[in-house]
Amino acid sequence: MNETTPLKIGVAGLGTVGAGVATLLSTNAQLISARAGRPIEIVAVAARSRGRDRGVDLSACRWYDDARDLARDPDVDVVVELIGGAEGVARELVEAALRAGKPVVTANKALVAVHGAELARASEQASVPLMFEAAVAGGIPVIKAVREGLAADRLTWIGGILNGTCNYILTAMRESARDFADVLAEAQALGYAEADPSTDVDGIDAAHKLAILAALAFGQPVNFGSVVVEGIRGIGALDLKFAQELGYRIKLLGVARQHEDGVEARVSPCLVPDRAPLARVDGVFNAVVAEGDFIGRLMLEGRGAGAGPTASAVVADLIDIARGTVVPVWGASGTALSEVRSIDREAFGGAYYLRLLVRDQPGVIADVSAVLRDFGVSVRSMLQHGTAPDGPDNGAVPLVLVTHVTRESAMLSSLARISALDVVIEEPTMLRIEAG
Amino acid sequence: MNETTPLKIGVAGLGTVGAGVATLLSTNAQLISARAGRPIEIVAVAARSRGRDRGVDLSACRWYDDARDLARDPDVDVVVELIGGAEGVARELVEAALRAGKPVVTANKALVAVHGAELARASEQASVPLMFEAAVAGGIPVIKAVREGLAADRLTWIGGILNGTCNYILTAMRESARDFADVLAEAQALGYAEADPSTDVDGIDAAHKLAILAALAFGQPVNFGSVVVEGIRGIGALDLKFAQELGYRIKLLGVARQHEDGVEARVSPCLVPDRAPLARVDGVFNAVVAEGDFIGRLMLEGRGAGAGPTASAVVADLIDIARGTVVPVWGASGTALSEVRSIDREAFGGAYYLRLLVRDQPGVIADVSAVLRDFGVSVRSMLQHGTAPDGPDNGAVPLVLVTHVTRESAMLSSLARISALDVVIEEPTMLRIEAG
Repeated sequence: MNETTPLKIGVAGLGTVGAGVATLLSTNAQLISARAGRPIEIVAVAARSRGRDRGVDLSACRWYDDARDLARDPDVDVVVELIGGAEGVARELVEAALRAGKPVVTANKALVAVHGAELARASEQASVPLMFEAAVAGGIPVIKAVREGLAADRLTWIGGILNGTCNYILTAMRESARDFADVLAEAQALGYAEADPSTDVDGIDAAHKLAILAALAFGQPVNFGSVVVEGIRGIGALDLKFAQELGYRIKLLGVARQHEDGVEARVSPCLVPDRAPLARVDGVFNAVVAEGDFIGRLMLEGRGAGAGPTASAVVADLIDIARGTVVPVWGASGTALSEVRSIDREAFGGAYYLRLLVRDQPGVIADVSAVLRDFGVSVRSMLQHGTAPDGPDNGAVPLVLVTHVTRESAMLSSLARISALDVVIEEPTMLRIEAG
Repeated sequence: MNETTPLKIGVAGLGTVGAGVATLLSTNAQLISARAGRPIEIVAVAARSRGRDRGVDLSACRWYDDARDLARDPDVDVVVELIGGAEGVARELVEAALRAGKPVVTANKALVAVHGAELARASEQASVPLMFEAAVAGGIPVIKAVREGLAADRLTWIGGILNGTCNYILTAMRESARDFADVLAEAQALGYAEADPSTDVDGIDAAHKLAILAALAFGQPVNFGSVVVEGIRGIGALDLKFAQELGYRIKLLGVARQHEDGVEARVSPCLVPDRAPLARVDGVFNAVVAEGDFIGRLMLEGRGAGAGPTASAVVADLIDIARGTVVPVWGASGTALSEVRSIDREAFGGAYYLRLLVRDQPGVIADVSAVLRDFGVSVRSMLQHGTAPDGPDNGAVPLVLVTHVTRESAMLSSLARISALDVVIEEPTMLRIEAG
């Protein structure tokens, strides 16, 4: 291939990220061409509205109303899919492009998390790369770091702070001692949270990213349905205060851990010791930690979202394609590694934080302690401070327990019994403690 | 090439890292073969002592007394150079291997920092990769992250904590309020510092790594001789105490910054705000920060040295070679990017910390302030606390000044004049403040 022949790309979806990609390709055109060995040019786009001002001139491109036409355009070398969603047009476009022998770059975490196994097969059959650096942690080159940089290591742990919206909310709740709903409204006003925030605050977005990281780390897609997912709606200002008092921060973590009998994968708010690197990652920042048998512990931290960082990741993938780099989707050929078995939540283990709201009367601690003892859960520390400082004076007081390492099954059984106690006023909050 | 044909490597140097590479290739053989697409096997080695127990069986390999023979062995596909040193056998081996069309993997930061320009030309002429992930920050895949992951970005700043020995010493000095010599002796006893510690504590090792990072970030080798290098021997327990009081940590930072008229490259102990991510990187850990026009700020943190992390980086490079990945040494073809001009120290700018030991007598502050005023340096804050807590009671007191942003030339002129004042007892300590 001639070095001056441009790599011609078709972009599906011209929202924030699509416009960012066009802006980046134009702003850094000379530098990108030097690094890629040839120019990278947008020759075709597919977007709903042709007229909208996107701050960049795309008038020389062919326009398609149906994004799937990009896969059929013989003058498009590479398809960039920025539509989003695990099904529908995005999925059809990516599948059609791979079948047509066109490399694909996508920022679509849902698609890769849910259909990663079939897409990897399609990529391998067609011998064309499927790249998705932008799908996890925005501009942080975590896919490359894990799939190539840590290729020699057997990874045992991967995870981190994968959703900037939740991290912003938890940081602001801690710093200003406000409650979830209050801070969410502020985040929405600032554009850090969507009008319908459920994908973020219920942990779905982080779970998509975690599924991708787990697949990279352990060599095969995990079944997305088996990822345990909890969001941050249940976290109160009270929990952040207690966590701080105990020497922890609360972070929404995605964690995938290799056990002898399978992989544990979960997204949930966790207590992290306040001296741990992950505890210090605040605001909209993302951070990914990986642990391998030779490299030890590695952390990558940066902006997990936004037009600039996401476009940076998309274009880095395009430069790899222009250079001719091809790496298998999950780091090894589909037949080379064994399947990843997910293990059930009941088999998880760890230390736990338990926050109850109980009646302020004698015998409460004895009742709660007895339940934990019956299930073999050992208590490491306990906090009780009279009435809830920001609650109504209804005779209810918060009671916080931190356990030693135990089985999650024992915690779930204890929790069911404790919730049913007369003295327990509302649904308890249970958070796992992670080393961070 | 048949997928089951092993990639046959020759390893020069069987010290800690060489033995680590052999151990890793044997321990994770199956996984590495799956990820590389074929097995990676050591077929030849060159080392001084054949008999030493290295914890791994190399009896089936061909042994060479002269490492340069590895480049001539027709059965060696890739040469791994782990001898070290900018000149001599290491350099001759790498040059001979590239001339012979053999890809090279090296952990040799001095060689790449000092001869990077010629080696890049040799690699490009022979169309074979020269890889050196292990040369900077051990196991942290920073070369890959910058050269490939940030390939779409125009970088403006790169640097960080690049020497684990210095970071260990500064961390221990702060935590235990001990002086440099004391902590150095401890670090030597623990194996964190060499018997001759000068390469580490005088900043040379960090400067080699910084030169490599700057070349990657800005597209061309910087002239190693123009990197400004200061070590940590002049830092006292007193400075760490004052820094803490002012809300900073002291870190030995390598910093390369793109200015309009050239690149500023320096290694020096700096004050970093204690809330900055780099301030929290303690002990033997390394961290690299890069700043680009689209990605924003990215930080990578992990183990910068040791057999495991370094071997992990070497073998990741070998897997890239087995996969057929070829990326230009400095991220773009030699002719594609303009040369990097270094700018002189006098043109640097920033805010500065100045610690003097002065006679405890009237008029001292007036004398010192007058010098700074004469050179247009504006003082932001000043600290003086009676006699030095750990010094002899000789009428000397420490005086600390923090300036607003100014030119380094003004600081150097002020410093020369201040040192000559009668009331100033010993050579002042001047440290730059970096955002971290």
